[in-house]
Amino acid sequence: MIRHRPGSPMSDPQQKLREICRIAARVFYEKGYDGASMQDIARAVGLTKAGLYHHVESKDRLLYEIMNYGMDILDETVLAKVSHIADPREKLRQTIIGHIDLVVRARDLEITVILHENRSLKAALRGKINARKRRYVEFLENLIDQVQKQSGGEPKISPRLAAFALLGMVNWLYQWYRPEGSVKEPELAQAYADFFFRGLLGEASTSGV
Amino acid sequence: MIRHRPGSPMSDPQQKLREICRIAARVFYEKGYDGASMQDIARAVGLTKAGLYHHVESKDRLLYEIMNYGMDILDETVLAKVSHIADPREKLRQTIIGHIDLVVRARDLEITVILHENRSLKAALRGKINARKRRYVEFLENLIDQVQKQSGGEPKISPRLAAFALLGMVNWLYQWYRPEGSVKEPELAQAYADFFFRGLLGEASTSGV
Repeated sequence: MIRHRPGSPMSDPQQKLREICRIAARVFYEKGYDGASMQDIARAVGLTKAGLYHHVESKDRLLYEIMNYGMDILDETVLAKVSHIADPREKLRQTIIGHIDLVVRARDLEITVILHENRSLKAALRGKINARKRRYVEFLENLIDQVQKQSGGEPKISPRLAAFALLGMVNWLYQWYRPEGSVKEPELAQAYADFFFRGLLGEASTSGV
Repeated sequence: MIRHRPGSPMSDPQQKLREICRIAARVFYEKGYDGASMQDIARAVGLTKAGLYHHVESKDRLLYEIMNYGMDILDETVLAKVSHIADPREKLRQTIIGHIDLVVRARDLEITVILHENRSLKAALRGKINARKRRYVEFLENLIDQVQKQSGGEPKISPRLAAFALLGMVNWLYQWYRPEGSVKEPELAQAYADFFFRGLLGEASTSGV
């Protein structure tokens, strides 16, 4: 419902739901999912409780919409930007840089946290979010596989394990990286992309481990 | 208080507090921190509420004790096992393997989740846990620095960025890895240790990225 296809105009209800998601994410982040009531969220958004229920039918559904929005942002900001790139290496490198940018920019921190932390989403909705996460993993696996084939030789690691290593490195950034610290984002992004490509394709140093 | 120094005998109250932590972690994991009451936890442990308060003074303190126990497990199982290893590479490799084992074994899953997810721990106690996490990061940075020096040449990534890349790869495992799946733990551990060492020390493949 909230899904916005790049290129298509976004309706007013979609825009409003996104605004609700951003604010609600902040409230959940501060008070905890269980600790925040729909009343708290309505107040933060500037709606009556009935007005909030007009946009989203339950707290569980709201949590789902926030997670879905997090995946939309990934599609719209990271994947849309690399869709025109033909070369697998360059496409993978730009995906890494874009995903890092998404995780470290403060604007969507609360959404990132909610997307990745273990919250009490009911099974049916959790299944839908997991399916979207799975499609992104498959996109990465596929790209990694192409990069390995392009480079020739035996793959050094399975595309699946490499994809999750990448997701771990990048998604973990929200736990420790602060943009105001000494390492700036371009330096971070380059260091991590280079590290990943060495891990994927590099020759182990000759002194042997 | 709960801290157990390897080699020293553990007192009965320490053992009991650990048992409480393990059970409480499961209750928090299932009901959410805000959703679980001290009464729920007392019931799960088989104590009266007064009996539970005899061991731990508040819910906030209990959350802290669970996180502290998580760090104890890291000290006692991962770090104690590598303390006798002199060679930095081998020490780092065994640390990676030990840390992976800690994250993927189901026994302490709930504790791992609670240790890493963003929960409402009050500032003073959060500071103590963060100090313990920081010491582990410093241990890794220091070891990585030694490995880089041993290998000679310019370091390819700062020890700090490499340490967090490693923590991301390994700690993220709880999000996706299932021991009953097709990739068994020894294969996973070797693939990730090799990947990390290539990322740290490897030569980028000649075709250039």
